[in-house]
Amino acid sequence: MQLIDQRFLPHQFVIEDVSTAAQMATAIRDMHVRGAGLIGASAGYGMYLAVLRAADTAAATAEFDAHLADAAAQLKATRPTAVNLVWATERVLRAIRAIEVNRPYLDAIEVARRVAQEIADEDAEHCRMIGQHGLNLIEEISRAKNGKPINILTHCNAGWLAFVDYGSALAPVYAAHDRGLPVHVWVDETRPRSQGSKLTAWELGQHGVPHTIIADSAGGHLMQRGEVDLVIVGSDRTTCTGDVANKIGTYLKALAAQDNGVPFYVALPSSSFDWTIRDGSEIPIEKRGADELKHAEGWRDGQTVEVRVAPESSPAANYGFDVTPRRLVSGLITERGVCKADEKSILELFPEHAS
Amino acid sequence: MQLIDQRFLPHQFVIEDVSTAAQMATAIRDMHVRGAGLIGASAGYGMYLAVLRAADTAAATAEFDAHLADAAAQLKATRPTAVNLVWATERVLRAIRAIEVNRPYLDAIEVARRVAQEIADEDAEHCRMIGQHGLNLIEEISRAKNGKPINILTHCNAGWLAFVDYGSALAPVYAAHDRGLPVHVWVDETRPRSQGSKLTAWELGQHGVPHTIIADSAGGHLMQRGEVDLVIVGSDRTTCTGDVANKIGTYLKALAAQDNGVPFYVALPSSSFDWTIRDGSEIPIEKRGADELKHAEGWRDGQTVEVRVAPESSPAANYGFDVTPRRLVSGLITERGVCKADEKSILELFPEHAS
Repeated sequence: MQLIDQRFLPHQFVIEDVSTAAQMATAIRDMHVRGAGLIGASAGYGMYLAVLRAADTAAATAEFDAHLADAAAQLKATRPTAVNLVWATERVLRAIRAIEVNRPYLDAIEVARRVAQEIADEDAEHCRMIGQHGLNLIEEISRAKNGKPINILTHCNAGWLAFVDYGSALAPVYAAHDRGLPVHVWVDETRPRSQGSKLTAWELGQHGVPHTIIADSAGGHLMQRGEVDLVIVGSDRTTCTGDVANKIGTYLKALAAQDNGVPFYVALPSSSFDWTIRDGSEIPIEKRGADELKHAEGWRDGQTVEVRVAPESSPAANYGFDVTPRRLVSGLITERGVCKADEKSILELFPEHAS
Repeated sequence: MQLIDQRFLPHQFVIEDVSTAAQMATAIRDMHVRGAGLIGASAGYGMYLAVLRAADTAAATAEFDAHLADAAAQLKATRPTAVNLVWATERVLRAIRAIEVNRPYLDAIEVARRVAQEIADEDAEHCRMIGQHGLNLIEEISRAKNGKPINILTHCNAGWLAFVDYGSALAPVYAAHDRGLPVHVWVDETRPRSQGSKLTAWELGQHGVPHTIIADSAGGHLMQRGEVDLVIVGSDRTTCTGDVANKIGTYLKALAAQDNGVPFYVALPSSSFDWTIRDGSEIPIEKRGADELKHAEGWRDGQTVEVRVAPESSPAANYGFDVTPRRLVSGLITERGVCKADEKSILELFPEHAS
């Protein structure tokens, strides 16, 4: 498999070859790839690589199964908050367990390849549909603004780098821009890993979408001054009741949006729902290394270098995500349409998950 | 005059010699010195340097006056939001204009020196008193927590580096720590200039106060989990009605504090009140260069280096401050005591400003 090693963007465009599930697990854990949908697609292909390796080495079905179980456990342990990871890994595993697995395992290889491809294709199609449904929201605002620029604030990166083709939060932005609507995006820098200034700004720039990078602290001030018409963010895991786990800081933007009457939408393919959790406080929150906060990585003299921005002896705590309670969410933009962030509305769109 | 050039902290402790008002203006504008009280004290001494220079060069009183007016205008233009700047500059100017100024201007030199010293001494004394009044608040929380650590969140740097001796927001923290109370400080990194991770963390570390650096985005999550007992921030300008301009992002923390029932206090010496403005939206908000956002400055290989953290072609907007409306402020900690953030309560403490 080949993936874009996002650690080097926007400075370098590096393609990484990945040939084992263990390498894929490293790529996910160390964030060569990140973003809800892309983590899912990568995990799917990680399982496919595990099947290829097991088919090469396993003398018997039990050994083959054990190899797959190991790989699945390894992949699922890489990022605790991202629900697409578990969802995709288990989808491949379930499909293989549904067939008879025997040497030389050709059926298993074919099933794994097909399901991994399905996960990726569905992600692309679902994000394309999210773009269309979100476009309606932006068109409505555009009509009210009489052709003046529509200012959309986003946090972190939920664009095509975070998914397979279109992205979640940015899909409506791209759709609106391509339709000729005058969108402008406020890009939250998104410390400590700066996915906003490094990835979202780069993506939008590549696509020619007007945008401005701001500090994570600035969104409230802009909303107070009426300079934000709409907030759209992605989600790493959304409960079936509508609580949204997303990149740390999302909650603060949701509070500011509510305080200033700015619509706050979350765009997510249904693969990012967790149908088993009813309360956002149950979502595990990833804690990453303190070094990410005490350092900044950037470009200097033609290479990526890291500088220390804090006293060596000061501790730091690095929480990856927070939970925005459903009461602060104006709506969810999914592949099947826009719904309110509550259980009833979500299950009306996805009745197959009603218990 | 000598000042700590804070641009090099926490990596190097650099003392800068400043001998003209123009050099002082540069030091303030380019943030060798920053922070409400220190800007005031620096401006006071900047005016003293202007008087010394004018006394050296001015042939007649008119020329002397013109030189001072120029220096005052130059100093006041350096930072638009900081009200101490105007307050201190005009205090020196007013004192000189109250006396008869004649060659060789010895009286003017003496008055300027005395008033600049008064500004600095008052700042130190007022911050010491803020520490005592704030200590009462922390002691109250400490009693309720039965000796468990008291977690205090702060934004930016309002410690002794930002003032003359004690700081505003950190004065109560130091007082509590020195009293033996188990305080722990969540230090907001405070992008883009990282005054939190560079200055506050360093200050607290020097004083032995337990602290943890967090991303600016993390405070809401910590409050949701009950890990913040109290927020204390400083202020660059507070209206006579209690609206608070402070470092960009303060408003978001105030929203989160309200949403989670966490007390949110602003510590300020009365020199940071603007008695002429009734509504926070009238406070001018400083916009600084985009480069501060697109770059990060840090330590590498024994020197301070700057790295670029965003695409070269992406624009960025860098707002220095935001305004927290009085409804989100639990109280103001001043040198005369703690009061509510409303006009009546403020004027009860400072009746000489009632019109």
